[in-house]
Amino acid sequence: MSLVAVGTGAFDGIETPYGKVDKVIGGAGTYICWAASYFYQEIQLVSVIGDDWPVEEIRNLESRGIDTQGLQIKRGEKSFYWAGKYHDNMNQRDTLVTELNVLADFDPVLPEAYQNAEYLMLGNLTPEIQMAVIRQMETRPKLIAMDTMNFWMDVAWDSLHETIKEVDLLTINDEEARQLSGEYSLVKAAQKIFALGPKYLVIKKGEHGALLFHEHDVFFAPALPLLEVKDPTGAGDTFAGGFMGYLANSGDLSFSNMKRALIYGSAMASFCVEEFSLDKLKNITVDELVHRIALFKNLVHFEM
Amino acid sequence: MSLVAVGTGAFDGIETPYGKVDKVIGGAGTYICWAASYFYQEIQLVSVIGDDWPVEEIRNLESRGIDTQGLQIKRGEKSFYWAGKYHDNMNQRDTLVTELNVLADFDPVLPEAYQNAEYLMLGNLTPEIQMAVIRQMETRPKLIAMDTMNFWMDVAWDSLHETIKEVDLLTINDEEARQLSGEYSLVKAAQKIFALGPKYLVIKKGEHGALLFHEHDVFFAPALPLLEVKDPTGAGDTFAGGFMGYLANSGDLSFSNMKRALIYGSAMASFCVEEFSLDKLKNITVDELVHRIALFKNLVHFEM
Repeated sequence: MSLVAVGTGAFDGIETPYGKVDKVIGGAGTYICWAASYFYQEIQLVSVIGDDWPVEEIRNLESRGIDTQGLQIKRGEKSFYWAGKYHDNMNQRDTLVTELNVLADFDPVLPEAYQNAEYLMLGNLTPEIQMAVIRQMETRPKLIAMDTMNFWMDVAWDSLHETIKEVDLLTINDEEARQLSGEYSLVKAAQKIFALGPKYLVIKKGEHGALLFHEHDVFFAPALPLLEVKDPTGAGDTFAGGFMGYLANSGDLSFSNMKRALIYGSAMASFCVEEFSLDKLKNITVDELVHRIALFKNLVHFEM
Repeated sequence: MSLVAVGTGAFDGIETPYGKVDKVIGGAGTYICWAASYFYQEIQLVSVIGDDWPVEEIRNLESRGIDTQGLQIKRGEKSFYWAGKYHDNMNQRDTLVTELNVLADFDPVLPEAYQNAEYLMLGNLTPEIQMAVIRQMETRPKLIAMDTMNFWMDVAWDSLHETIKEVDLLTINDEEARQLSGEYSLVKAAQKIFALGPKYLVIKKGEHGALLFHEHDVFFAPALPLLEVKDPTGAGDTFAGGFMGYLANSGDLSFSNMKRALIYGSAMASFCVEEFSLDKLKNITVDELVHRIALFKNLVHFEM
């Protein structure tokens, strides 16, 4: 009974209209674990960092109940580094620097205690690494979710498709759904993507919310209109972490529970973007979360 | 007790990835009236056309209960003509032709029977024409709603502001809300726009839905994910027509009723885009409408 979260630990350099920070803590694995930890405590991290990553951040993860046996620390090597600059509209960004460092030859090794996890969240990485993790599971998880991006559609089409075939749920953004399916209509895109293997598709639309497709059902979680979005970095990973943490805790994969998970994921993402790096994500109170869920409900509920 | 709808009657030339049509019936006034006529029968049209506009279309409007006393027909002149081409993504379009024709010197004259209407919907026109209509109302309507566009922000900033000051509700798209307010955050944009006069702001986001702001309340109506969007022309006007028709019929301006109106407007817009011109909008059954409202409810409702 656990949730395995696979994803980078990173240093980020981020520039937005609200400011500029460098070498702050980031990485898909970090965001996923922090977000999921608000809902579930049996989280097992698979990641790789250099010995330049602060030990304190590892201790912080462990204090949230996150198992770090699967976190590889490469002596004498540097952590993955990404730097980007967001445009004024925050929905677009330019990547300024990508230094793979320890990620260049990352070979994930699943500790034995991880191999019977019921939930597996594959953060955005090469499809080969994602597949290597799936292959190391002793029993097939109840739910395998996978995040990916357009880059792998451009450079690793075949291995991306092989990995997609093995997962239950795929999370991508709207442009990626269109690229992967060749369909502009997201309804048609979902049907084509289901034919590739997944039974669930989450289409992330940033400030325009997220759609969950399953068979012929569709559910939409809005994004909360916020006074300020300071830094969108990690919002998608935070969303995925909240979503999977909530599902793992409830153990309920009904569509009505998936809806709730989508709302919790969206709520966590709405906190994430309010501050740089994980500054807000590390400090959310139960009251704040409860209040935010009520805001989501008020935002879309109507009586006829 | 009536709803005055002000807006163009037009011929449209439309090219989308689904096909190309020319000289089809269009115009904000036409779309508003058709959409509103599904909810309310006391509609009074203010518009102008040339004698090239088919008499049959005027009879069609009248058969929906729409009063055409305020529809000016200019002998020997041509109707407003607009032609545009939509990009593959349907959210962007290029205007290919704009022939003002009868619109060039449109001087709206409100018949006496219109002057005590409780609801006034000002479709997108020059702010001066919109103001001229407001000035001809004998009693101040319960609700004056106004649509406008970025073009008037570029060329008629002052008169646009004078007109906005007189209205209760403004409908614009997200980019226009940002341009008008100078704020990227739509929450901040709404507060700045309230300071200009309106008490309500509807921000239309096309395939990403619509937001309704009032004081510190906000409500979001999603757009329905559709199998096919054939022609987005008139969707915003159709939305406004459905919204105002529903409000006028209920006579209830509470926020919870405004939410319902927003959903009905969105439902009408979802029909509008499924066919070219008014082809679908003219042929919606009660069953289809009831079914579509249920789809909207299923799309966003969740239980915690």
